[in-house]
Amino acid sequence: MRELGIGLIGAGYMGKAHTLALRTVDATFGTALRPTCASIATSTAEGAAEHAARWGWQDSTGDWRELVDNPAVQAVIIATPPRTHRDMVMACIAARKPVFCEKPLGCNPAESLAMTEAIEHAGLPNMVGFNYIRTPASQLARQIIASGDIGDVIQITAEHVEDYLHDPALPASWRTRIATGTEAGALGDVAPHIVNACLRLVGPVESLVADAHVVQSTRLGPNGPETVENDDQGQMLLRFANGASGSLSFSRMAAGRKMGYTYRVTGTRGALAFDQEDQNALWLYDATRPVERRGFQKIVMGPAHPDYLAFNQGVGHGTGYNEQIVIEMRDFLEAIATGKAIWPTFRDGYEVDRIIAAALRSNAERRWVTIGEVA
Amino acid sequence: MRELGIGLIGAGYMGKAHTLALRTVDATFGTALRPTCASIATSTAEGAAEHAARWGWQDSTGDWRELVDNPAVQAVIIATPPRTHRDMVMACIAARKPVFCEKPLGCNPAESLAMTEAIEHAGLPNMVGFNYIRTPASQLARQIIASGDIGDVIQITAEHVEDYLHDPALPASWRTRIATGTEAGALGDVAPHIVNACLRLVGPVESLVADAHVVQSTRLGPNGPETVENDDQGQMLLRFANGASGSLSFSRMAAGRKMGYTYRVTGTRGALAFDQEDQNALWLYDATRPVERRGFQKIVMGPAHPDYLAFNQGVGHGTGYNEQIVIEMRDFLEAIATGKAIWPTFRDGYEVDRIIAAALRSNAERRWVTIGEVA
Amino acid sequence: MRELGIGLIGAGYMGKAHTLALRTVDATFGTALRPTCASIATSTAEGAAEHAARWGWQDSTGDWRELVDNPAVQAVIIATPPRTHRDMVMACIAARKPVFCEKPLGCNPAESLAMTEAIEHAGLPNMVGFNYIRTPASQLARQIIASGDIGDVIQITAEHVEDYLHDPALPASWRTRIATGTEAGALGDVAPHIVNACLRLVGPVESLVADAHVVQSTRLGPNGPETVENDDQGQMLLRFANGASGSLSFSRMAAGRKMGYTYRVTGTRGALAFDQEDQNALWLYDATRPVERRGFQKIVMGPAHPDYLAFNQGVGHGTGYNEQIVIEMRDFLEAIATGKAIWPTFRDGYEVDRIIAAALRSNAERRWVTIGEVA
Amino acid sequence: MRELGIGLIGAGYMGKAHTLALRTVDATFGTALRPTCASIATSTAEGAAEHAARWGWQDSTGDWRELVDNPAVQAVIIATPPRTHRDMVMACIAARKPVFCEKPLGCNPAESLAMTEAIEHAGLPNMVGFNYIRTPASQLARQIIASGDIGDVIQITAEHVEDYLHDPALPASWRTRIATGTEAGALGDVAPHIVNACLRLVGPVESLVADAHVVQSTRLGPNGPETVENDDQGQMLLRFANGASGSLSFSRMAAGRKMGYTYRVTGTRGALAFDQEDQNALWLYDATRPVERRGFQKIVMGPAHPDYLAFNQGVGHGTGYNEQIVIEMRDFLEAIATGKAIWPTFRDGYEVDRIIAAALRSNAERRWVTIGEVA
Repeated sequence: MRELGIGLIGAGYMGKAHTLALRTVDATFGTALRPTCASIATSTAEGAAEHAARWGWQDSTGDWRELVDNPAVQAVIIATPPRTHRDMVMACIAARKPVFCEKPLGCNPAESLAMTEAIEHAGLPNMVGFNYIRTPASQLARQIIASGDIGDVIQITAEHVEDYLHDPALPASWRTRIATGTEAGALGDVAPHIVNACLRLVGPVESLVADAHVVQSTRLGPNGPETVENDDQGQMLLRFANGASGSLSFSRMAAGRKMGYTYRVTGTRGALAFDQEDQNALWLYDATRPVERRGFQKIVMGPAHPDYLAFNQGVGHGTGYNEQIVIEMRDFLEAIATGKAIWPTFRDGYEVDRIIAAALRSNAERRWVTIGEVA
Repeated sequence: MRELGIGLIGAGYMGKAHTLALRTVDATFGTALRPTCASIATSTAEGAAEHAARWGWQDSTGDWRELVDNPAVQAVIIATPPRTHRDMVMACIAARKPVFCEKPLGCNPAESLAMTEAIEHAGLPNMVGFNYIRTPASQLARQIIASGDIGDVIQITAEHVEDYLHDPALPASWRTRIATGTEAGALGDVAPHIVNACLRLVGPVESLVADAHVVQSTRLGPNGPETVENDDQGQMLLRFANGASGSLSFSRMAAGRKMGYTYRVTGTRGALAFDQEDQNALWLYDATRPVERRGFQKIVMGPAHPDYLAFNQGVGHGTGYNEQIVIEMRDFLEAIATGKAIWPTFRDGYEVDRIIAAALRSNAERRWVTIGEVA
Repeated sequence: MRELGIGLIGAGYMGKAHTLALRTVDATFGTALRPTCASIATSTAEGAAEHAARWGWQDSTGDWRELVDNPAVQAVIIATPPRTHRDMVMACIAARKPVFCEKPLGCNPAESLAMTEAIEHAGLPNMVGFNYIRTPASQLARQIIASGDIGDVIQITAEHVEDYLHDPALPASWRTRIATGTEAGALGDVAPHIVNACLRLVGPVESLVADAHVVQSTRLGPNGPETVENDDQGQMLLRFANGASGSLSFSRMAAGRKMGYTYRVTGTRGALAFDQEDQNALWLYDATRPVERRGFQKIVMGPAHPDYLAFNQGVGHGTGYNEQIVIEMRDFLEAIATGKAIWPTFRDGYEVDRIIAAALRSNAERRWVTIGEVA
Repeated sequence: MRELGIGLIGAGYMGKAHTLALRTVDATFGTALRPTCASIATSTAEGAAEHAARWGWQDSTGDWRELVDNPAVQAVIIATPPRTHRDMVMACIAARKPVFCEKPLGCNPAESLAMTEAIEHAGLPNMVGFNYIRTPASQLARQIIASGDIGDVIQITAEHVEDYLHDPALPASWRTRIATGTEAGALGDVAPHIVNACLRLVGPVESLVADAHVVQSTRLGPNGPETVENDDQGQMLLRFANGASGSLSFSRMAAGRKMGYTYRVTGTRGALAFDQEDQNALWLYDATRPVERRGFQKIVMGPAHPDYLAFNQGVGHGTGYNEQIVIEMRDFLEAIATGKAIWPTFRDGYEVDRIIAAALRSNAERRWVTIGEVA
């Protein structure tokens, strides 16, 4: 294997997940490239050094630009808040380094499009971090749909709902302020994952109507009660280019839903259902079986399913969140090794961002919006 | 017990269910009134006589007007297609007889309102047949919400989806033609039940936006391929008067979903979830428990729950569709015995019909519609 | 239809269930015989009269022998405690009346065998009330096994566990005393149902080893703490004549299990699983499908399944406990009408009682017991 | 962190899992010791070299004794078939190196006891690889039982059933031969995991009765049909020292069961249930809640639960098989760092092996066996 020096910007939750993935992806998949943990950047030199020591990075810096320009760094992973993505990506492009960027790509579609066009123009491998669609079960869902086994897709019911802000006693934070978060609350935070799933499972969206609103209007800030500036929950109706329709819910206040990323896809010959809280199973309904023997079938993931065998030899042994990140890294390394873009690229991230922007506009103007209206 | 002569118009599926319910409701609940099967009417005298013999009705007729005027008939159950309801109800009012009418009450809100105002003016007991909300579990859901145990309701995700027309080889029928069915396909056929649930669980709807469409554009009719004239599936977004929001799906082509009447209600202190395919359980989430011991709890119905004990003494013994009808009959008899209206009355049925009409308009005009716009 | 006068002995829980079933079985199934509620007997004339009035029986008596001899009574249902069965059955035989007897048939195998031989000798229709095996789903299970679709049965894991005596504060009762109950506690009370299921699904048992014990050693009686005399819980291993093996649990203290009557049957080509708490579904695994598409399939009961259509036209509408009793009555009436024994007969009940007796002996002697050792 | 050179013997499925775990355990948990992949041994020098290159081991050898004596190796992981364990362990003890040994510890209790006494005498850290009990959910189960929240344990129903040999076309292999496998088939292969769970959740076993048998009597070997020499499936009854009882099933032919490691534990105040196929949830029943609000509650694992936060910050993100191994390595490193034995030690492995041996004897002699009978 040839070694490839990786630079990581960000040492939060996702930074740790990427570190773990980088340390095992080669042994897991036998990748052509073996990544090395070349340098990690956080906002302070001390913090970076500490994380480097704890997580085993060879070098560290408090200045991400230094990391980007470090010749030992041959590819960059960006795991920082959305508002920082643009400058970092542009710097990587200038330094001609492939980029893996966490979702959402930009703070709005214009920003995402600029990054996308720049990196495509530069011809550099690029990828966006939509990890949930990487589970063996969701990959199997895509395979089954592609195989035609459930026929043409006619409907999808999807959601990404969690309850991390359900408690009214939780304080105001960057997430609840537009200046530091985004205009979209739950819509920007959780919806992109499931929007991405809808695009991959059904196809391009043509138009939508969305409704989003604040439930907990104030939360305690450092200087007393503070207005919550973006949506706590909402839902949208979708019309797809292929004629299918659907609905999609998103929430950060869905009491009891912990990883409520679910979808049910109906086709002309069958149906599929998935629930991320039980991520090692896919439910398949085959409408062509004899009527007295029809029912949703729980397929437990195993070596016969996509990307499973590299992790486990036994059916039902189970993979979790961290394996999703390892699969992302495998694809990123392969994109670099072969120079061939692997989905989901920046352009895919841009398409998701357009849907979110269209939903914001639809909610504000209380009307159906076609995706074409959004740059 | 005092006896009460019942007249039944209609000998289809629902007619049979009502017959069975009438024969057991008194022994089950010890009702003040004991119903007798006085007379049954169908479209032909022969058919009526045959059903009377098979199901144990004392008299029969091929003319429903004769049944309404029969002095042995003291209350009437209407279990015929929607287009016939108006005339039957008006005749019952003229004959001053209490009426139980299957859903939907009228073919449109104007018709429903006319019936409602007439029967209210006459001061006669009246009821509409929304059976699914009668399960012990859905009654428990209403109790829990009323008790405040899940706090204020902030969101509902609901659906009534089935697959009875999923097979494209199924022929055209009265259901797929506007002249014999209604303008609303799945929207008119299955949505009313779950709309009713939304109204009972959350409260009045203020506005909505709906999307409905035909999937299988033609089906074989007696003279060759025929256009399907009303929707196969769709979904809507709801805004409630209390500020809650929600989404609602309806379908007659949801492959694999047999009795897909489900709801999940989120409140400020917890959540509830229900699935009619597993109608003997209600799922409750209590957000006030310690964080490491929180989760949705499957409550299996038993004698401690509404209306269960009359049917069974053991938890988990289970009730089914026919018990829902018995509960309806119990309430209808009690409304007659006490002269006190019991929910759901004709007015409740009218409110459901307004939502359906608003959804039709929203779909046609591609915009949000306030319920106030619909008579 | 020809009418048939029924006599019912017992006005408890099961008496009510039989009353409801008798009032609807003819309309439900279009039986050749239409049962009439001729006479009901309880231990007092007043109680019997009151139940007759409430439940609609034509006659009543405080002396069951009078009922048996009543010429209006053409067949008898026995729904009283086990200790009373023998005399009642023998009287019915003397009066030459068909008998439906609740389980367990006798207090021990000798008693059951005596009743069985007497009624067979008399050539009278007879049946034992194992209702749970009557659900559409359990009937489908039997059909699937008979069809060979899961191959030869090699193993069964079964249980009937409830928690009706879990609370230590519950007082002593006839159930916890040998003189009034039986030597077998949970073993006699709940195990017979699931033993019956094992016999129907797998075949005759050859030998077993059982372990049963008291958990709550004393309970409050009328005169202070009282010793609990029979088992609260236990389990057994089974060897079947066809070489299959299995295990079976029984309990009256299984916290949280309300109707924990479940089984999983493994065959050489697939498997089945069932849970009475979700009685409208059967789970089927087909081991001959492609490996990447295998899984347990949830088949929701509908008109295509045994005995469902008579109750409901829609898949997933659901049946419950009371429909099981209606199905029993349908078979009892048909056995009378045709003179042809319908399963489960007294002999089937005797076979179940032998297994229970063998389990008692095995537990007492701490050894494997062959069923042949028990008379 | 101080570095610790690890030697790994075996490059199969478990060898890979340990490699992945060693590469991430320090970053995941911030362990005091940072393991390095010092040397790997397989049966051939070429194979070892290839695995070293693929998985990133610094050194390799075709002779495990060389690895044990390598001064760069400071602790050893044994991931080879059971028949090899004894010699390897004894060599490690001679070289005074801590040992982690995959289950089962020995081929019989005598062997296990010899290893246990030797390593205890030497005072070396030691551990056995029962990974399934390491999930956050099973750790939570142990915590809940220890807390007394479900009261005293009175019963357990447990199983470890899979279907890896269900297909009769699968050939004979080392698993089906006593000379290369063990006398115990499924009993030796899958049962130890769930026996271990029973011991940890309930306590010491006093006596048992077991039944095990071959289903597929011959399988194709290299020279034609070959007799299958050890059990395909079976079950046992357990009596615990604390008076609780239970049953336990094991199978390698349980069609449709992929990772059928499940248990349900009943206590005097509640109950727990777990299913390894849905390893991120634990079901808890609290019998002290109001009767109308009781039910099994699905607790989805999150940062509030044991060992979860180090892997993920979000509830429901999920862990899988590989995280179980990381947790094992964390404990092994900590045992070495502190010199304090961490469960499950060799002695715990020996106790499991005694139960398996007792079950073999019980099956052979068709009688109850007390554990004290087995050395």
